[in-house]
Amino acid sequence: MPLDSSPLPPYTTDHSVEFYRAVGIWKETSLARAPELGSDVHRERHRAVLETAARLICEKGYEAASVQDIADACGLTKAGLYFYILSKEDLLLEIQNYGMDIFEERVLLPVLTIADPVERLKACMEKNILLVTEGWSKEVTIILHEHQTLTGAARTQINARKKRYVHFLESSFEEAMREGRIRRVEPRVAAFSFLGMVLWIYKWFRPEGKIKSDQLAREMQDLFFGGLETVKAKRPAKVKARPRNKEKAA
Amino acid sequence: MPLDSSPLPPYTTDHSVEFYRAVGIWKETSLARAPELGSDVHRERHRAVLETAARLICEKGYEAASVQDIADACGLTKAGLYFYILSKEDLLLEIQNYGMDIFEERVLLPVLTIADPVERLKACMEKNILLVTEGWSKEVTIILHEHQTLTGAARTQINARKKRYVHFLESSFEEAMREGRIRRVEPRVAAFSFLGMVLWIYKWFRPEGKIKSDQLAREMQDLFFGGLETVKAKRPAKVKARPRNKEKAA
Repeated sequence: MPLDSSPLPPYTTDHSVEFYRAVGIWKETSLARAPELGSDVHRERHRAVLETAARLICEKGYEAASVQDIADACGLTKAGLYFYILSKEDLLLEIQNYGMDIFEERVLLPVLTIADPVERLKACMEKNILLVTEGWSKEVTIILHEHQTLTGAARTQINARKKRYVHFLESSFEEAMREGRIRRVEPRVAAFSFLGMVLWIYKWFRPEGKIKSDQLAREMQDLFFGGLETVKAKRPAKVKARPRNKEKAA
Repeated sequence: MPLDSSPLPPYTTDHSVEFYRAVGIWKETSLARAPELGSDVHRERHRAVLETAARLICEKGYEAASVQDIADACGLTKAGLYFYILSKEDLLLEIQNYGMDIFEERVLLPVLTIADPVERLKACMEKNILLVTEGWSKEVTIILHEHQTLTGAARTQINARKKRYVHFLESSFEEAMREGRIRRVEPRVAAFSFLGMVLWIYKWFRPEGKIKSDQLAREMQDLFFGGLETVKAKRPAKVKARPRNKEKAA
């Protein structure tokens, strides 16, 4: 799935429950109104509502952004907006579930089948970096990682989805240790270091800057796994033998 | 000033401008009302106001937390609160400057004089991890890194202080490369990877969890510098010499 900047590929979480289960991820039934309902047009509009609302909430703050403001920004009447959302808190939950859907579809699912744990982790890092640097609406990411406004069951649901990613990382690190592919490391620290490096990117990375996202992915893979791996892994073909940096940098 | 959880050493930014300049950090004159003004008691109260306000803003959101709410939480009248702050936006700026003061005092200043760039970076990582894991009010950290509500000159000021830290890290990595202490790396990616690992900690670390902060600091130092260093540094006795490094990277 080409992740290039703007036009995102269609949002397809149709392969939901069964597929997720088949690949070992149990996708909870959403507490929010299921975005899978309705026609393609409806789903695209629903998605646009989530993106627009995310932008507004980031700009004004969740409390300050009224349902009327959100409706205005979406070019809908308030009644029209309620066709897509159940309530303001539900909207926040939907934005976060939407963010997690995209993350799981673009990052987690494609790497689950990679047998070697280190290659799996490296591919996962690369895909997550590309997701954060390209294409995906920044505001959804911010809301996913900075908004503590959800409460109760909604919060539990999103936290469960986030924890699943942490658990995936931890068990991949454990597996890599068992197989002697990496030196010993505390899996939890490794998992959150991985996450911190990757997720902090949205705070500083500018697509128009001199560091490109593919270079960033390679550098971070090297930084992170350079000190961990015990045996040289075969590198993926597309990553060219970097001119070993020689005179760059500094 | 008992800061609930763990007792912090006194907050002493008295050595402000001259000292900061002497060690190579130029401390801007605060746009906010200088916390150095007034008696010790005044300063302690001022600090308590900042901590309390930070907690409330994190809990309710900046927009939703009114000046009256903040005054109530501080046990002050609104007029009493205005003895300590100039305005609500100024309060947010003060909280962020307060956070940066503590950070510079506890993390940056103590390591500036370390001659070896790798030892300097390692000490900096350790101190920053301890700052994030121990003692320091979590809400101040959250506001420092998640609140985009500042605008204009206030925002510029805080961003300049944050950029100074990034610049310190980048130039230390450059120096380490020049001296052949680490392999080549893009300094900007290294700096933000370092920051991401360290600053993400406040999102997941629990002091009562099984990983203690000193273990966390050692693990992260190893993770980060294990793949970078070209010569084995004298390791702290407790960390056993990792086999490898030699043929690593690629």
